[in-house]
Amino acid sequence: MPDFQKIISQVYQGLEPMPNTGKVANYIPELAHVPPQKFGIHLLEMNKRAHSVGDAQELFSIQSISKVLSLAMAMAAIDEKVWERVDVEPSGDPFNHLSLLEQENGIPRNPLINAGAIVIADILVSELKKPKEDFLEFVHQLSGDNNIAYDEAVASSEKSTGFKNFAAANLLKSYGNLKNDVEEVLDFYFYQCSLSMSCAQLCDTFYLFINRGVCKQGTQHLSLNQIKRINALMLTCGFYDEAGEFAFEVGLPGKSGVGGGIVALLPEHFCITTWSPVLNPKGNSTKGMAALERITTLSGLSIF
Amino acid sequence: MPDFQKIISQVYQGLEPMPNTGKVANYIPELAHVPPQKFGIHLLEMNKRAHSVGDAQELFSIQSISKVLSLAMAMAAIDEKVWERVDVEPSGDPFNHLSLLEQENGIPRNPLINAGAIVIADILVSELKKPKEDFLEFVHQLSGDNNIAYDEAVASSEKSTGFKNFAAANLLKSYGNLKNDVEEVLDFYFYQCSLSMSCAQLCDTFYLFINRGVCKQGTQHLSLNQIKRINALMLTCGFYDEAGEFAFEVGLPGKSGVGGGIVALLPEHFCITTWSPVLNPKGNSTKGMAALERITTLSGLSIF
Amino acid sequence: MPDFQKIISQVYQGLEPMPNTGKVANYIPELAHVPPQKFGIHLLEMNKRAHSVGDAQELFSIQSISKVLSLAMAMAAIDEKVWERVDVEPSGDPFNHLSLLEQENGIPRNPLINAGAIVIADILVSELKKPKEDFLEFVHQLSGDNNIAYDEAVASSEKSTGFKNFAAANLLKSYGNLKNDVEEVLDFYFYQCSLSMSCAQLCDTFYLFINRGVCKQGTQHLSLNQIKRINALMLTCGFYDEAGEFAFEVGLPGKSGVGGGIVALLPEHFCITTWSPVLNPKGNSTKGMAALERITTLSGLSIF
Amino acid sequence: MPDFQKIISQVYQGLEPMPNTGKVANYIPELAHVPPQKFGIHLLEMNKRAHSVGDAQELFSIQSISKVLSLAMAMAAIDEKVWERVDVEPSGDPFNHLSLLEQENGIPRNPLINAGAIVIADILVSELKKPKEDFLEFVHQLSGDNNIAYDEAVASSEKSTGFKNFAAANLLKSYGNLKNDVEEVLDFYFYQCSLSMSCAQLCDTFYLFINRGVCKQGTQHLSLNQIKRINALMLTCGFYDEAGEFAFEVGLPGKSGVGGGIVALLPEHFCITTWSPVLNPKGNSTKGMAALERITTLSGLSIF
Repeated sequence: MPDFQKIISQVYQGLEPMPNTGKVANYIPELAHVPPQKFGIHLLEMNKRAHSVGDAQELFSIQSISKVLSLAMAMAAIDEKVWERVDVEPSGDPFNHLSLLEQENGIPRNPLINAGAIVIADILVSELKKPKEDFLEFVHQLSGDNNIAYDEAVASSEKSTGFKNFAAANLLKSYGNLKNDVEEVLDFYFYQCSLSMSCAQLCDTFYLFINRGVCKQGTQHLSLNQIKRINALMLTCGFYDEAGEFAFEVGLPGKSGVGGGIVALLPEHFCITTWSPVLNPKGNSTKGMAALERITTLSGLSIF
Repeated sequence: MPDFQKIISQVYQGLEPMPNTGKVANYIPELAHVPPQKFGIHLLEMNKRAHSVGDAQELFSIQSISKVLSLAMAMAAIDEKVWERVDVEPSGDPFNHLSLLEQENGIPRNPLINAGAIVIADILVSELKKPKEDFLEFVHQLSGDNNIAYDEAVASSEKSTGFKNFAAANLLKSYGNLKNDVEEVLDFYFYQCSLSMSCAQLCDTFYLFINRGVCKQGTQHLSLNQIKRINALMLTCGFYDEAGEFAFEVGLPGKSGVGGGIVALLPEHFCITTWSPVLNPKGNSTKGMAALERITTLSGLSIF
Repeated sequence: MPDFQKIISQVYQGLEPMPNTGKVANYIPELAHVPPQKFGIHLLEMNKRAHSVGDAQELFSIQSISKVLSLAMAMAAIDEKVWERVDVEPSGDPFNHLSLLEQENGIPRNPLINAGAIVIADILVSELKKPKEDFLEFVHQLSGDNNIAYDEAVASSEKSTGFKNFAAANLLKSYGNLKNDVEEVLDFYFYQCSLSMSCAQLCDTFYLFINRGVCKQGTQHLSLNQIKRINALMLTCGFYDEAGEFAFEVGLPGKSGVGGGIVALLPEHFCITTWSPVLNPKGNSTKGMAALERITTLSGLSIF
Repeated sequence: MPDFQKIISQVYQGLEPMPNTGKVANYIPELAHVPPQKFGIHLLEMNKRAHSVGDAQELFSIQSISKVLSLAMAMAAIDEKVWERVDVEPSGDPFNHLSLLEQENGIPRNPLINAGAIVIADILVSELKKPKEDFLEFVHQLSGDNNIAYDEAVASSEKSTGFKNFAAANLLKSYGNLKNDVEEVLDFYFYQCSLSMSCAQLCDTFYLFINRGVCKQGTQHLSLNQIKRINALMLTCGFYDEAGEFAFEVGLPGKSGVGGGIVALLPEHFCITTWSPVLNPKGNSTKGMAALERITTLSGLSIF
C-alpha cells in the first residue's frame, strides 16, 4: 500500500493555498456562516490505520452524506423492499428533479437524490419506534462515537426554508409514495441531514462499506451483498449531476454534501473524507473533488 | 340572432340520452358524490334575455372556473403588474406542470393553470383586507346574487388531499414567487375553488366579459382592454391541454372546471354555461364540450 | 369602420424611426442580406378596399407564413384526415420541439410548427401530381397574381443548411409519420417556404380567411367550417412560443415568418400584413408585433 | 481465483432452458433473423486462460459494443480533446435522447449513447485516413484476429432504416458538433456497428481494458489513465437506461448491444462476454444480464 500520510499531506499542501472563490452553500442560512478556508482530509485504511491533515477533526454539517446512512438503515430494516418505492438509476438531470418525479409517477430515480432520500426517511419513520433517536443510535454504533449529535439550529433553519423539499414530499404524497405525514417525514429528514461530524468521524462511520458490512466496532450490520449495492449506488448516483464526472476523474464510490464534505472509498482498502465548504456550480466541494482526483492519481488506486 | 332557446333545447335532447361512461372527478372526495347524469345548459344574451334547459339552476362546484374571476379581481387591483409574476402562454403540456415551473424559474405559464392561479391567489391575499370575504363580495357584485357561497366541505376536502397544490405552492415559494405563507394562500385558493354556483349564476357573473367590462348590474369593473386580455387568455389557456382542441372545435373563449362546468362566451353576443359532471381524460366535461361544439355549429356563431 | 389608412400611417410614422437593434434571420444565409430598415404595412378590407404604407409592395421571403397556405391546400384535399397525423394544440415550448415529437410518438403538436408543416408537406407530396407547380398554382388562384414565384436561391440556401428540418423529418420517418422520402418532402417544403411575396400580395392571398372560404377572385376554396378551424389554429399556434402573447396583445389570428412578415386578420372585416425583418428573440418581427398591437388598440377591433 | 469454467457452465445450464419470450432486435431488419435460442458465454482471465460454454464461438452483430472500441481509438488519437465535444454523464432518460441534445446545445451526454458515438465517429472520420479500414485494422490489432470483418448486409440494412440516427446526426450538425458530412459520418458509424464477432473474439479484443491498456498481443495502445476512464464510462453509461441497474446487480463495467451481446470486465482479473439475442424492454439481453448477475454472485467478484 502507498504511503497515504505522505500523499494526503502533499495534496493538502498543493491545494490549501488555492483561492476559495466559489460559494459556500447559502440556501440553508445556518450553513452560510462557515469560514470558506476550512480544509481537512482524513483517510482510514482497512487495517484501521488513520491519516489526517488540516481541519479533519472539526465538525461540519454532513447534509446529503447522511442519505447513505439512512439508506443503509432502511436496507437493514426491509432489505430489497426498498426498491419497490425508489429506483436505482442515475438522475442525470441538472435542473428538473420534480419533473422526473412527475414523469415517472412518483418513483424517485434513486435514494441519493432528495426525493429518493425523503422516501427512505418515510420508510424509517414507519419502521423505527423513535426515528430520530434510533437513527442517531445507529450512527453511534457504526462510528463507536456517542458524541455525534444533530445540529438543531441547522435542522430548524432548513425546516423554515426548505420549500423544495416540501414540494417534493407533497408530490410524493400525491402519488401515494409517502405513507406518513409530510411534516413528520420532513422533520426527521431535516434532522438526519443536520448531523454534525468531522472527517475522522465520517471515516469511522463509513468503515463498514469497505469492510463487507462489518463496522469498525466489529458488528455485522449489513450483508456483503447489501454493501456492494450501496457502493454501486454511490458510484452511479452519489454526486448530483456530476456522478459521471466523479467516476471518470476519481473512480471511487462516494457521496458529497452541500456542507462541503465528501466521503469516498475503495472497498477492502480505505475510506477517505475531505471537507472544504466552497462548492462548484453543481453543488460539490471544489477542493474536495480536486483533492480526491489527485489522491487517486498519486496512489494509482481506484475501482477501475 | 338565432333562436337560442330552440338550439340549446335541441342540443340538450340530442345529448341527454347519451351514456355517462367517463369518470366524475374523484381526486376531491366531495366531488365524487355528484350524480353523473346531471346535465344543464344556460345561455344569457347581451340583451340580458336568458335561456335554460335541464339542471341549469342546480348548484355545482365551479372549481377552476373561479380562476377567471380571481384573475379579474387581481387585474382590477394591480392591472399589468400581474404579468411580472405569471406569463400568458399556453402550457401545452399534459403531464408535467411542475416541471415547467422548474424550467422557467418559478414563473407559471399562465394564470389559468393551478400554479398560475396560486400566484394570483397570493396577489389577492396581499391586496385584500379579508381575502375570502372580499372575493365572495366581488362575485356577489358581478352576479347581483348574494346567495352564492363557498362550500366548506369541498374546501376542506381539497385542503386535506390537495398535495399537488401544496407541491406547486412550495415550489413557487422556493423561487420567491409566493409572498405569503403557503398555508394561507392555499386556504384562500381552496375556498375560491369551492364556490357553489348554478349555470344561470355563472352566466350572470361572467356577463361583464361579453359587455366590455360592465357587469349585469351596470357597474364597470374592468376596462375593455382588460376584458379583451382575459378573453384571450381563456381562449388560449382555458381548457388544460385541450385549449387548442376547444378553440378548434368550438371557437369561443371559455373555462372549464373539474366539477363538470364550462363557461364560454362570444363578446357582445352571449355567455353560455354547461354542466355535466362526467369528464374526459383531459379533465373537461365530455357532454359540455360536445354541447358547445354543436351549439356553435348550429348557430354559426364563433369568434373565427 | 375606422379610417384604416389614417391608422396604419400613424402607426407607421410612430414606429418607422425606431432603431432596428435586433437581428435579421441569419440561419438561412440568403435571408441575412435583407436591409433591416425595411418596413411596410398593407391592409385589405372585406369590401376589397386596400390601404398601404411604406415597403408594402416589396417582395420578401414569406417562410413560415406559407404553412397556413399548405395547410389550407391539404384540408381542401383530404379535410379532417389531416388530424390523424398532426394535433391542434399549442406547442408551448421554446426549446425542445424535437423532444415533444419524441414524447408524443411522432405526432407533431400542430401544423404551424416545423415538424407539423413537414407532415403537411408530406401529405401534399402524396396528394398532388406536381407538388411544387400545383402549390404555386394554388397561390396564384387565391391571389389572382401569377407573378408570385419561388426564390430558388432561398430554397437551395435552406436545403444546404436546414439540418434541424432534416432532423425533424428523419424523426418523423422513424415514427412512420412520413410516407415519402425525406429528401423529396423537404425539397418541396423548402420551396414552399421560399415564396417571395409582398404585403399586398399576402393580403390578397389570405382574403379567403376573412371571407368564409371564398377567395378574392370569387371562388370558394374551403368551407366556412374549414376556415374557422384554420383561423383558430393561427390564433393558438401562429407565433411560435409567443402565440399567447400575440393573442393577448393583438387579439387576432395570424402567422409570422422569419423573413419578418406577419399576416393577421379579423374575420369578415380585414386582413393585414406587416413586414420588418428585425426579429425578437422568439423569432417574430419586432416592429410588426408592435404595429399590430397599436393598430388593434387604435381601431378597437379584435376578435375578443 | 474461483473455478470460472465451473461457474459459467453452471450458470449456462441454469439459464439455457429458460423460455426466450422477449423480442429479438427488429429495428434493423437483418438482426431480426437471428435464432432467439442462441446462448454463449466466454471468459478470459488476466492470465489469458479462457473458458467457454454454448455458442461462444459463433459470430453475431456487436452493434453498440463497438462504441467502446471507437471511443478507445478516438482517445488514442486526440486524448482529452474528445471531452470538448461530448460529456461523461449518464443520460438517465428512457425516452428522449434527442431532447437532451436540444436542451444541452448539441453536446451529447456521453460517448456510449448513439448521439455521442456519432460525434466519436465524426472525430475518427476527421482523424483517420481511411476510417473503415483503419478502424477494422485497430480491432485486428487488439484481438490478434484478422478474420474479424464488417457485415455489409447489416450496415446497409441500418443505413436504409436508421432514421433516428439520421435525425441525431442532423441535429448535431445544426449545433456545429459534426464536422464532416452527415452521410459520410453515418456510413462509417453503421459499418462500425456492423462488426461480426464471437464472444471469444470480443474477450480477446477487450483484454486491454483489464490489462492497463496493453492488448492481448502485448502492445500498449492506451495509458492506464485512459483505460480507467473508459471503464468508468462503461460502468456509468454502458447499458442505456439500465446502467444503474447493471452496476447495482452485477457491479462490473460493461457494454451491451442490441445484437444480444454484453461485454463486462473486472480490471486485472477477467473479461467476460455473453450472447443471447432476446432483449428486455430496455434493449439489453435478458439472459445475458441474468447470467452476469449470477456469475458475479457465485464468484463473489465485483468492483464494489
